[in-house]
Amino acid sequence: MRLSNLFMPTLREVPAEAEILSHKLMLRAGLMRKQASGVYNYLPLGLKALNKLENIIREEMNKEGAQEILCSALIPSELLKESGRWGVFGPEMFKQYDRHNREFCLGPTHEEVFTDIVRSAVKSYKNLPLNLYQIQTKYRDERRPRFGVMRSREFVMKDAYSFDSSWEGLDTVFNKMHSAYCNVFSRCNLDYAPVEADSGAMGGSGSVEFMVKSEIGEDEIVFCTKCSYGANIEKAQTLPTNVIADVSVREVEKVYTPGIKTIEELAKYLYKKPSELAKTLLYKVDDKVVAVVIRGDRELNEVKVANHFVATEIEMLDAEGVREATGAEPGFAGPMGIKADAVLIDYEVAEGEVFSIGANETDYHIMNTMYKRDFDGIVGDFRKIAEGDKCPVCGEAVTIKRGIEVGHIFKLGTKYSEALNANFIDENGKENPIIMGCYGIGVNRTMAAVIEQHSDDKGIIWPLELAPFEAIVVPVVMKDEAQVKIAEDIYNNLKSMGIDALIDDRKERAGVKFNDADLIGIPFRITVGKKASEGIVEFKLREEEEARDILIEDVYTEIVKAFKEKGKVLYSKTEL
Amino acid sequence: MRLSNLFMPTLREVPAEAEILSHKLMLRAGLMRKQASGVYNYLPLGLKALNKLENIIREEMNKEGAQEILCSALIPSELLKESGRWGVFGPEMFKQYDRHNREFCLGPTHEEVFTDIVRSAVKSYKNLPLNLYQIQTKYRDERRPRFGVMRSREFVMKDAYSFDSSWEGLDTVFNKMHSAYCNVFSRCNLDYAPVEADSGAMGGSGSVEFMVKSEIGEDEIVFCTKCSYGANIEKAQTLPTNVIADVSVREVEKVYTPGIKTIEELAKYLYKKPSELAKTLLYKVDDKVVAVVIRGDRELNEVKVANHFVATEIEMLDAEGVREATGAEPGFAGPMGIKADAVLIDYEVAEGEVFSIGANETDYHIMNTMYKRDFDGIVGDFRKIAEGDKCPVCGEAVTIKRGIEVGHIFKLGTKYSEALNANFIDENGKENPIIMGCYGIGVNRTMAAVIEQHSDDKGIIWPLELAPFEAIVVPVVMKDEAQVKIAEDIYNNLKSMGIDALIDDRKERAGVKFNDADLIGIPFRITVGKKASEGIVEFKLREEEEARDILIEDVYTEIVKAFKEKGKVLYSKTEL
Repeated sequence: MRLSNLFMPTLREVPAEAEILSHKLMLRAGLMRKQASGVYNYLPLGLKALNKLENIIREEMNKEGAQEILCSALIPSELLKESGRWGVFGPEMFKQYDRHNREFCLGPTHEEVFTDIVRSAVKSYKNLPLNLYQIQTKYRDERRPRFGVMRSREFVMKDAYSFDSSWEGLDTVFNKMHSAYCNVFSRCNLDYAPVEADSGAMGGSGSVEFMVKSEIGEDEIVFCTKCSYGANIEKAQTLPTNVIADVSVREVEKVYTPGIKTIEELAKYLYKKPSELAKTLLYKVDDKVVAVVIRGDRELNEVKVANHFVATEIEMLDAEGVREATGAEPGFAGPMGIKADAVLIDYEVAEGEVFSIGANETDYHIMNTMYKRDFDGIVGDFRKIAEGDKCPVCGEAVTIKRGIEVGHIFKLGTKYSEALNANFIDENGKENPIIMGCYGIGVNRTMAAVIEQHSDDKGIIWPLELAPFEAIVVPVVMKDEAQVKIAEDIYNNLKSMGIDALIDDRKERAGVKFNDADLIGIPFRITVGKKASEGIVEFKLREEEEARDILIEDVYTEIVKAFKEKGKVLYSKTEL
Repeated sequence: MRLSNLFMPTLREVPAEAEILSHKLMLRAGLMRKQASGVYNYLPLGLKALNKLENIIREEMNKEGAQEILCSALIPSELLKESGRWGVFGPEMFKQYDRHNREFCLGPTHEEVFTDIVRSAVKSYKNLPLNLYQIQTKYRDERRPRFGVMRSREFVMKDAYSFDSSWEGLDTVFNKMHSAYCNVFSRCNLDYAPVEADSGAMGGSGSVEFMVKSEIGEDEIVFCTKCSYGANIEKAQTLPTNVIADVSVREVEKVYTPGIKTIEELAKYLYKKPSELAKTLLYKVDDKVVAVVIRGDRELNEVKVANHFVATEIEMLDAEGVREATGAEPGFAGPMGIKADAVLIDYEVAEGEVFSIGANETDYHIMNTMYKRDFDGIVGDFRKIAEGDKCPVCGEAVTIKRGIEVGHIFKLGTKYSEALNANFIDENGKENPIIMGCYGIGVNRTMAAVIEQHSDDKGIIWPLELAPFEAIVVPVVMKDEAQVKIAEDIYNNLKSMGIDALIDDRKERAGVKFNDADLIGIPFRITVGKKASEGIVEFKLREEEEARDILIEDVYTEIVKAFKEKGKVLYSKTEL
């Protein structure tokens, strides 16, 4: 491609709403333009990189036996009603009505559609296993689209769904997908980690998220400082310390705490540390009123509470509900005598300390209370793990980092096949629901994550596998015909080797050309300048600071060497 | 790919709603499944063929300097309001509202979006020309979706938009696109023709449709039986015959024609041929009431009437309007004394004959009337051309055929750039609207058209360039290990040559395998049977009836020869 023809509208200034590096660079380097909030159009450089990423995903999926199909974005409501999910997505789902007022949605995900395709095609265990995927545009009306394509309302997703006749089969394909995902993210040069994720109350252990480590990530991930443990914070277990409570401690004492409603205020007022207080949080879990008691300095983990009850909905109780449960104004709840369907006590509160708690009476708290002696409840793990807590695997301290979720693999089991009657006849002639898994990659988000990890103040530093163009040839003086001729020859030779090459044939100063090459992040730059007449050009890797002079003929061997090192395959025409 | 793993749910019976061959075969061969009326999901074989077609289009577009981008399907209403098209699509446009009740549509076409991208990036003639395209999913809520993907509500379209600083530039890119389209449809082995199409009242000559000849086509195309003239019937001109009217003919005579309202009834009643009668049709053209007089045996061409007035809307006048214009019940309109804003007389009626016309009085007609002597109006070409009419280029007889519109190239001029203020500064520092063209290919429809033209009673006969797999190796007896080994070797050799090969490793009878290979239309079949032990296999082209025995080593040369003949390129890994 000739840069003079390339539609590459770079920007000096980016809109203030572009808060993160990848969003800024994707706009500055002319990779994309915004069409509406959370909706983007891809320009040539952006689309080329996106397509290369899609092809990496395709290769790795196909290698593991998955087959590509393509489903419509328009999903009839009947299908989501069959699975019971029509109402579940709330305002995040774009509803669509046709001219006959038939109800559709723009698919936020495609479990039901794939299950529908398979139920009409598969009758017997002999037709299984199947692993089908698509690379397709999804629609989710995010409440707060932001960070460019990182959280957008229209995005490309690779979603795969596996169909098996046995749970062992599901384990096998799950592991294959795990390995395919590792290959994809490695080929993208991402610093990532597969971490355990919550799989809901029924899901067992089969949920792994692929997290790219990044300060701007919206997820918190827990890593062990010693072993290989990694988990989403929603999932990471905390353990009981098994301290035996000392029952000889001080007696309970009710204290007047006028208008003292928060842990901070109470700690100050009672001259205690927040960790010596216990807070009682009231929730509505499905239809139950639930009180959860955790240490004053901790955060509650709603996912753990919901999972305890195998519940699908959890929300904080409103003020009126709190008054009914406690007989007091909000701010004075405590486990002693509370009117709740269940009281959950976090391990730390159940262990050998005394805690100050709410008295269930407006303006009063109770000091020196103790689990079992003064109040009762179901003991378990209900809080968010914190920095320095013990690793649930090896017991060493954990650390918490931020991450971008780029992939998620999940054992669905028979949830959708049961709902949609997707059954198979087994070896014994018995009908069983098909056992399913689902496997997603956020394609645009992965691309943005690559830019987050691979850029500097000059621009993007594309990994070779994703670079929209692999090499750029820059003739320095466009008026120097001999120079231009040499540059054109190198450009043509690279192309015939199967290399995606660009030549900057614009009548611009060399400085402008170098800046643009850096901004758009082309891995190899070959500068044809003064020494070209002596057979020498400048060779520079985008990822390195320094350029070096090399012989023209060495350009090709250098590039081939680099391709080899990175395991990148080159294709060229077969002579027939 | 191993057929035992391929998700290829073929069907014996297809739903009755599949009326045409391509629709039936796409369902039977497991290329796609219906998701809703006019909405389809592509299965592996269908998607592979679709992708191959997309890549042909990409190659031909890129060769002519077009650049690929990818725009969102969600278009904010503001953009279509700027161009004045928000209301134009009517119920065919899927409207979409987000959680803030902002108005969008699912793009039926993308003129405004591309113009918006270009207006924000292009300032000067130096940034032009540009030709941008996308291969993207479009949404049109067709009143009557039918014929499978031939007329669907969601479909893949290649749409390109060119941007030039001069009209000569537009001509150049228009011609390039013409040639790219010819290459695309030729590579698909389609029997097609580029034909002149109506370009609206303002459009001049720049509108060409690419029509695939087919009985099931929804368009009528006019071809000259002698010269190369071809046109959509809406566009095809009829010519005056320049017969001098003989004014010595019989005098006018008003006749009582009780309840005689149609041409058929009138012809019978008056003992005349329909061609001796003239019918007067009343239209509302934008805001004008227009009477059009054509011969009784002819059809009116509404496009010609609308274009005469440079009008955007044309519809038949309702009964009330007819009564106002004629003073009579509908069925008795005539040009003598009619109250209309304009009276249009078709050439044939203006030429030297007498005609019977309506009397503008209920139950009366007038015989022996003559243009100029008895009534007046604007003479021109207002009827549809008919079989046997004269070719407007050479004067020989034309013939009318049916066609499927697979492509359309169109000179837009400055319609959108003026509406959206997409301007450029010219060499003299003057601001001008950018000159645009648009170029579309219906991708799924082209695929279906290929199947219409390339199939037999056994199934699809894929042209080599579109075949989801190029060759299939069929071991006859799966229990014969030596046979299977030879088949596997051939399969592996073909793959390493870069050929998209399939092996039918299912434990099925040879007959079943042959039927499936024929149904899914794989170009080359290599059958490994009894003679394999002697180094001989059966080689069969899908497009030929007979198979022939050849040496195993000749399989490769035969296939390479065929690839060469068809100009198909093979790619293989470059040894680094």
